[in-house]
Amino acid sequence: MTYLHDIPLDEAISAWREALNQVGALRKLPAESVFVGDANGRVTAAPVWARISVPHYHSAAMDGYAVRASDTAGATLTRPKRLKIGQQALYVDTGDPIPDGFDAVIPVEEAQRLGPEDAPEIEILASVPPWDNVRVMGEDIVATELVVPANHRLRPQDLGAITGSGHTHVQVYRRPRIAILPTGTELVRPGSELKPGDIIEFNSIVLAAMAEDWGADANRLPMIADDYEAIKRAVAAALEDHDLVVVNAGSSAGSEDYTARIFEDLGEVVVHGIAIRPGHPVVLGHAQGKPLVGIPGFPVSAMITFELLVKPLLQHWVGQTIEPRLTVEATITRKVLSPMGQDEFMRVTWAGGRARRGHALAARRGRAHVDGAGRRHRPHPPLFRGVERG
Amino acid sequence: MTYLHDIPLDEAISAWREALNQVGALRKLPAESVFVGDANGRVTAAPVWARISVPHYHSAAMDGYAVRASDTAGATLTRPKRLKIGQQALYVDTGDPIPDGFDAVIPVEEAQRLGPEDAPEIEILASVPPWDNVRVMGEDIVATELVVPANHRLRPQDLGAITGSGHTHVQVYRRPRIAILPTGTELVRPGSELKPGDIIEFNSIVLAAMAEDWGADANRLPMIADDYEAIKRAVAAALEDHDLVVVNAGSSAGSEDYTARIFEDLGEVVVHGIAIRPGHPVVLGHAQGKPLVGIPGFPVSAMITFELLVKPLLQHWVGQTIEPRLTVEATITRKVLSPMGQDEFMRVTWAGGRARRGHALAARRGRAHVDGAGRRHRPHPPLFRGVERG
Repeated sequence: MTYLHDIPLDEAISAWREALNQVGALRKLPAESVFVGDANGRVTAAPVWARISVPHYHSAAMDGYAVRASDTAGATLTRPKRLKIGQQALYVDTGDPIPDGFDAVIPVEEAQRLGPEDAPEIEILASVPPWDNVRVMGEDIVATELVVPANHRLRPQDLGAITGSGHTHVQVYRRPRIAILPTGTELVRPGSELKPGDIIEFNSIVLAAMAEDWGADANRLPMIADDYEAIKRAVAAALEDHDLVVVNAGSSAGSEDYTARIFEDLGEVVVHGIAIRPGHPVVLGHAQGKPLVGIPGFPVSAMITFELLVKPLLQHWVGQTIEPRLTVEATITRKVLSPMGQDEFMRVTWAGGRARRGHALAARRGRAHVDGAGRRHRPHPPLFRGVERG
Repeated sequence: MTYLHDIPLDEAISAWREALNQVGALRKLPAESVFVGDANGRVTAAPVWARISVPHYHSAAMDGYAVRASDTAGATLTRPKRLKIGQQALYVDTGDPIPDGFDAVIPVEEAQRLGPEDAPEIEILASVPPWDNVRVMGEDIVATELVVPANHRLRPQDLGAITGSGHTHVQVYRRPRIAILPTGTELVRPGSELKPGDIIEFNSIVLAAMAEDWGADANRLPMIADDYEAIKRAVAAALEDHDLVVVNAGSSAGSEDYTARIFEDLGEVVVHGIAIRPGHPVVLGHAQGKPLVGIPGFPVSAMITFELLVKPLLQHWVGQTIEPRLTVEATITRKVLSPMGQDEFMRVTWAGGRARRGHALAARRGRAHVDGAGRRHRPHPPLFRGVERG
């Protein structure tokens, strides 16, 4: 039996990042053109520039009469002015274009209609400055202006701005395609009759849901028993049409833990074992210019390592960095004795209210990252920022 | 021309809620059974109880030898004990079932293998208590235990717990189905050649994306000119197969603002006009036991009223209440003069760092809710909590 050589998380990530960069696996994903109505949550692969101004014409901001401001000069309460409807004053609804040569709108409630039916007029009691109650062309967006930068995850309001500025489609990164391969002779499908030793395979469901939450297309492959050749074939096949292959589990160093040997066989293993608890038996490698990840079978270990190692990669490929988790200072209510030299991740219940002064304390779930001395670590730096070569 | 009778937001919501409750429009949506792998983000319509325990058998927590703890009694460094492999000690891998009659595991590195090949033994230097290094049946979940309560929005880890406790499917609320009907003679499709007065129709794209983000199925209906009969027919048809119909716009009181009259024609108008800026020309009604909402055409008004009025309803139907927005105390850098008697919603840039001590100040976008005196309002109470009759 061999043992893993656990190395610190930061070193593991640096080594893997360097290796991935060398083989071109950190290039951004290709762009594709998507109808704006289908682009919510996608990430722009290029800046979006306004093709037209918004509004694209001088527009009435009120229901009322379009006038020439110069015609209103001198009107006061004691010396009202009259403007001929049809020549000097034209009725407009909100949003209507301002007729050529006109430059202001007098709201309907400030214009008294007078005169005979065949020669109607409005009487006004005040002059108006040019462009009063007019939304001028380009008030919101000027043609050629930047609407949305590249590497921006699109929100509903962005879709409105992009469409309003003259686009029907937007260039976004293709979604990352991730294959998740459950392996293990002990695995059985959900809903199977169980005998002692059977493990219901659900990690692939959890990991696929996490990946989809992060904007990836996740493909749950059929599970495979601990059979070296069968797993190797499945990994090789998955490499063809995915950006990343995750094998779960077989990532440790037992007699039937094939993941590391298969990665070595197909490409290169960069890291085998990370000094974190839970989750230390991790394999990080690559083949055919694509990352390979072996993660442990214990569900909590699988989730933690997937988030620590796979999420940053999925985000990097679409120009995103990970928002660091919110950190809070808190007092631990019991002693935590972590193994020396290991970073330990613990789920905790946090009772805190500093961010919501004046409210009752709220119990919240979060995750503390506690080192061997029970101190809170600073969050790890963004994992894949600024390392792209190509 | 008629004018709206703006009423305060709280009163508008109360009146509408009461009316919707009377016609049975606040009943939760029906449940449907969904494969666990497709249930991420859905909301449970019933509690999930464990069908089996996790683990469902006594399981080795380490690679090593299963033993009877009683056989190890008295072993010490100076008086080691020997156990016959095959009778008193059986090799197990992590996760293997503990053989019948055995009750503890001695890790492989604490058991020295001795004796001849045909009668091997292990030597141990310490006794072990019963259940040492054994994950006992039900350690994580006991059969019949509550796994996930009703009205819980499912996260990836919940899917694992549900599957691991013996389920393949889960009862979730059907997604709310919302129809969004863009109306207006001035509207043109995205990508059209524009002439002055044309408005590119993009509100439906924005609103549909918001509704999908909130877990609803949004249906963007084809846009319709300001034609009373055509709009009425479209609303009536949409009522057949949606839970909620939103008409955008025509919600004000102009000559071509048909929304309120059509709602009255098909059912009942409860509110027409809310004392908020922007967004005051809102129509709230119902027909055939389903809510009808008319929202303004100005994009910011549309988004704000959609979030204030439609989001709580979509959430209520699947047993959720709105998380109140995070409130922060801040100093406004310029004077805000809101109209008397109106609640004004303003988007602001907030420079603040109280929740992240020790970090540089971060500029963040948020929304302030400022009343006529420039004071921050308390958030509105959850809109639809606890009012269900049926």
